[in-house]
Amino acid sequence: MYRNFGFDVIDCYEKSRAGLLKTPHGEIETPAFIFCGTKATVKGLFPCQLIDAGTQLVLSNTYHLFSNPGADSIKKRGGLHKFMGWPGPLLTDSGGFQIFSLGHGSVADEIKGRRSGTSNLIEINEQGAVFKSYWDGNVQLLTPEKSVETQRNLGADLIVAFDECTPYHSDKNYTAAAMERSHRWEKRSLEEFIRGNDFSQAIYGVVQGGVYLDLRKRSAEFVNENPFFATAIGGTLGASKEQMYEVVEMAMDGLDAVRPIHLLGIGGIADIFRGVALGIDTFDCVHPTRIARHGNALVKVCHRTGDSSREHINLWSASCSVDDDPIEPDCDCFTCKNFSRAYLHYLLKARELLAPSAITIHNVRFMNRLMEEIRGGIINKNLKYVKDKWC
Amino acid sequence: MYRNFGFDVIDCYEKSRAGLLKTPHGEIETPAFIFCGTKATVKGLFPCQLIDAGTQLVLSNTYHLFSNPGADSIKKRGGLHKFMGWPGPLLTDSGGFQIFSLGHGSVADEIKGRRSGTSNLIEINEQGAVFKSYWDGNVQLLTPEKSVETQRNLGADLIVAFDECTPYHSDKNYTAAAMERSHRWEKRSLEEFIRGNDFSQAIYGVVQGGVYLDLRKRSAEFVNENPFFATAIGGTLGASKEQMYEVVEMAMDGLDAVRPIHLLGIGGIADIFRGVALGIDTFDCVHPTRIARHGNALVKVCHRTGDSSREHINLWSASCSVDDDPIEPDCDCFTCKNFSRAYLHYLLKARELLAPSAITIHNVRFMNRLMEEIRGGIINKNLKYVKDKWC
Repeated sequence: MYRNFGFDVIDCYEKSRAGLLKTPHGEIETPAFIFCGTKATVKGLFPCQLIDAGTQLVLSNTYHLFSNPGADSIKKRGGLHKFMGWPGPLLTDSGGFQIFSLGHGSVADEIKGRRSGTSNLIEINEQGAVFKSYWDGNVQLLTPEKSVETQRNLGADLIVAFDECTPYHSDKNYTAAAMERSHRWEKRSLEEFIRGNDFSQAIYGVVQGGVYLDLRKRSAEFVNENPFFATAIGGTLGASKEQMYEVVEMAMDGLDAVRPIHLLGIGGIADIFRGVALGIDTFDCVHPTRIARHGNALVKVCHRTGDSSREHINLWSASCSVDDDPIEPDCDCFTCKNFSRAYLHYLLKARELLAPSAITIHNVRFMNRLMEEIRGGIINKNLKYVKDKWC
Repeated sequence: MYRNFGFDVIDCYEKSRAGLLKTPHGEIETPAFIFCGTKATVKGLFPCQLIDAGTQLVLSNTYHLFSNPGADSIKKRGGLHKFMGWPGPLLTDSGGFQIFSLGHGSVADEIKGRRSGTSNLIEINEQGAVFKSYWDGNVQLLTPEKSVETQRNLGADLIVAFDECTPYHSDKNYTAAAMERSHRWEKRSLEEFIRGNDFSQAIYGVVQGGVYLDLRKRSAEFVNENPFFATAIGGTLGASKEQMYEVVEMAMDGLDAVRPIHLLGIGGIADIFRGVALGIDTFDCVHPTRIARHGNALVKVCHRTGDSSREHINLWSASCSVDDDPIEPDCDCFTCKNFSRAYLHYLLKARELLAPSAITIHNVRFMNRLMEEIRGGIINKNLKYVKDKWC
């Protein structure tokens, strides 16, 4: 069923694991970070710049591409890889997350249980989700079958079953009912996937269940029992860091360890170390690329100023205007090798196009180096030393 | 006086010439096009992308950098080359052109005699020009000495004497008086240059005189008589293409042919062929990079649609949404090798950061290939054939 795909655990350290995820567009050394190319582009970067920065895997959002330019249109253009000029492994999500979370605030807000607001979501029923397109305001219906068909047309290597992402404020009854419906949707996703399977794609099942231990357990069993290629941990992870780690830990418990495990929407440095310690193989988050566009550069603990729990420096800060050092002197990215903090500060203030791209390159390289060193730490059994260096 | 600089004419074809311009940061094969890195960055491109596209020389604007971040500040950061991470030859202008033209419309409008409007210029007197900074509204005085000192602090290889750029609507009396004052300013620029000469820079004299034959002749004599390294043809070139070519021709007549000759602010493809035919060695213009940011890609005559005198295609055009070809199939730029017109159209519509950068890369490579082929046409005596291919 997944003959062109594979996942091998190469080495372990306690619960952490170093693996090799094989796809038709290349192999991914795990633990790995997946960068968001939301609308068929990692904002401001050329594919060759992503490759130079060591990027292994890019995620594009079905929700966004569904509305514009449309998956049919991308299929006619030769598929997403060809369309966006990205030669490596690609993942698309199911589209559900954005339907359920856009309007509630940012992706991170939603996972972490902050804020709520108006939604693009019109109705959820057994068939699927009815929503208003962000692009043209048209009312659309996304079903499990439609999500898988859309992802097939996009042609990413890794795709995700359609599920409902329940918000943090949902009570247990709603969360349980939504989870059961998600399981039915995921089963329908899998059936549609199998119906059209041409061995160019592999599908992830998603563990839901909110912050409720027994629901997470039930959901993990559901995913284990069905022939998904891999597992993603989705849904709300709670309102605090500590609750997030607890929820992830309970969601991991009992998961089929033969499959790769992805943690959806988490990308802080400390969070990644905690996730890796629990056995997570891959992470994705808009965080590294989004904060770059606001002038924030990720730095290791030795380069932080002030509160060391803040994992980045802000290049808008006036002190940067006379700072001739690169973002990180020990970073090998193009930006650190060629530009000073003073120049980046100047570019931001002058609203120059180059500023977001230059800082994004650093943050992408930073995340990839982080993951490379974490992998080394697992293989060399010195993960604690790696952690002390990075956060 | 210019011991680290040189200019050799390698070959000629009628009045056209292929040369080699030597600077401390590298050699420039001429005819060459100089790209505008107005505010210490060619908008949206990394220096390595400029180099990959064959760029030999970048121009930064003294006027813009004078106000923000300030030339002193750039000097403290190690000079403009280091600040902006550009390792090759750099040119700065005197700052005068922007003082006299900003507020009158675009640079191209001004040279070509279109429109007039309110100006940032407060007063011109014998000392220099008083103007209001675009950056903070502060009133500033720019004198010839200050311009050269500023350009020394910036540290470009090639710098330009301070002159007044008279608008098209000036009558002959005003143009003549302004030209004489410009000559006095240029002499003061040269004296200040010689006073501080450390052999890291070379200075251009500027031919003014508007559209008046006898004034252009007088101005050419002035520049010839003074030990400038090179000559730039500046000022208004008239209201029509034909007048422009006439004015350039008269400005060229009698110019010292041993020096390199630059035509300020001209960058159309047909215009470049006309300029080269008159013996121009270098050109600069914001046109190729500015139109790119508006979705316009330069194309050779065989790739044009509709009116073939329009030297670009507009990627916003709806027909591009289903066009799987690159901008130009025979172009070797990164964008043409990796992206279709359909993808670029999509990126523009989605307001993605990558769109302006990707189209700029094409336009930069296009101009550099154009100049490479023009040089080849001079050396191989088949410039007419080259011209038929490109415009």
